[in-house]
Amino acid sequence: MARPTEHQVPNADGSAGTPMPPGPPPREPTHAERCRTLVGSGTRGALSTIAADPPGYPYGSVASYGLDDRGNPLFFVSLMAEHTQNAMRDPRASLLVTEPVPDGADPLASGRVSLLGRLEAVADGDRDVARERYLAANPVAAYYIDFGDFTFFRLGVEAIRYVGGYGRMSWVDPADYAVAEADPLAGAAAGIIEHMNADHADAQVLYCQHFLGLADTTAATMSAVDRYGFDMVAVGPGGRVAVRLAFPAECTTGEEVRRAMVDMVTEARTAPGA
Amino acid sequence: MARPTEHQVPNADGSAGTPMPPGPPPREPTHAERCRTLVGSGTRGALSTIAADPPGYPYGSVASYGLDDRGNPLFFVSLMAEHTQNAMRDPRASLLVTEPVPDGADPLASGRVSLLGRLEAVADGDRDVARERYLAANPVAAYYIDFGDFTFFRLGVEAIRYVGGYGRMSWVDPADYAVAEADPLAGAAAGIIEHMNADHADAQVLYCQHFLGLADTTAATMSAVDRYGFDMVAVGPGGRVAVRLAFPAECTTGEEVRRAMVDMVTEARTAPGA
Repeated sequence: MARPTEHQVPNADGSAGTPMPPGPPPREPTHAERCRTLVGSGTRGALSTIAADPPGYPYGSVASYGLDDRGNPLFFVSLMAEHTQNAMRDPRASLLVTEPVPDGADPLASGRVSLLGRLEAVADGDRDVARERYLAANPVAAYYIDFGDFTFFRLGVEAIRYVGGYGRMSWVDPADYAVAEADPLAGAAAGIIEHMNADHADAQVLYCQHFLGLADTTAATMSAVDRYGFDMVAVGPGGRVAVRLAFPAECTTGEEVRRAMVDMVTEARTAPGA
Repeated sequence: MARPTEHQVPNADGSAGTPMPPGPPPREPTHAERCRTLVGSGTRGALSTIAADPPGYPYGSVASYGLDDRGNPLFFVSLMAEHTQNAMRDPRASLLVTEPVPDGADPLASGRVSLLGRLEAVADGDRDVARERYLAANPVAAYYIDFGDFTFFRLGVEAIRYVGGYGRMSWVDPADYAVAEADPLAGAAAGIIEHMNADHADAQVLYCQHFLGLADTTAATMSAVDRYGFDMVAVGPGGRVAVRLAFPAECTTGEEVRRAMVDMVTEARTAPGA
């Protein structure tokens, strides 16, 4: 069975959702960008290493991390810890980073990234940068950052598995990941979504009607936003459908999003036939 | 350097905490019991398997689980998923389960368990029980539990690493884990702690003064409770100290805890010299 490549929200009666209107799909973050955003939003993951006993078994542990410029995780580990001992024997490792799962939500619908690579001690010349990056991500570590039995390790990423939820998944090219930017709206997204759904439900219905050709939309709820546009679930007589709308131009701040939303309302209201 | 075996809370000035009074230490859950409690309180972990590409690298993924009678995790996995494909090639695997980390807390101070073993398809004869156990833990899976491309896998636990926070860690005997009981107060503990700290701070000071010989205790806060007793942080002129007090008899319900707490207050107040 072929793997599905896109998530489709079914109608309330279980039938397939209305397809998107024809035309080029609205731009959305690449999976490499989604990975950089997700990994960059967290500071803690599940580190898998190879155990000595039982031999060759993968061993999962909790690890806090920072990131270098190319998105390689930096760890500050005790030399006594199992994962450190494991990595010194066999550097093959991976770091799993998971999006927070809302209470009651299906955890398998949330995004996660697995970064596979070699876990190796940071060279002396790179130690100061690693220390700075690690502390920026994990200020709570300040009180033991200079303990002698701890050291910095770096996971040099060689392969990346991205799962964005049911049916949205791929292997991501590490070279793409290394140069991808985390979404500049990542920190602001939750607030934007809350504000749009609380105060601008009408605007979202208008967007669906005018820009997406869903004239009979009766309600719409924002589910995600990024620099290129936003996702909504639109409700109409035929049920629910997941849709995406691109911003007229890339938005890198909450203020730019606000202006784009206002401009889009103006355009929809003043269009011929509106 | 020897691994520390017990967590010690230092005084506010950084000096070592007051030692516990002499005598046998109060009973506390074994690490096997702590593992069963922690694993039994969750339904989702990080599953590590061995990847084919890059070859032999450990691969971390998100997995929901239920438990069989002996604490072996049961998974309901898609045959298309990477971890399933990995396990069918090489059954060596582990499941990492982590305590929830309070906002702003150091994640490395929270408990976690790594269960290492072989991940194998559940035999046809055991499928109904696996289905029931998995659904009890993951009701959200009901809508796809009978999909044809999903199947049940079981992790037969062979080795267990427990980390209860800084300095509290051990390898746990799988035979002990298999027969250990999850703490019957696990579900009630958060409520008991909140209630005791909000409404019975005075009783906790009295416990420290009377039962633990810490006559100059000025404040005490409950940090954990289990069937055998409870942990407090006691504050006095000399600083803070972590202490533990056993219940007079094992408590398996919140009501039994309430009665034990009242009895202990009565005993402390009516003791000669009180």
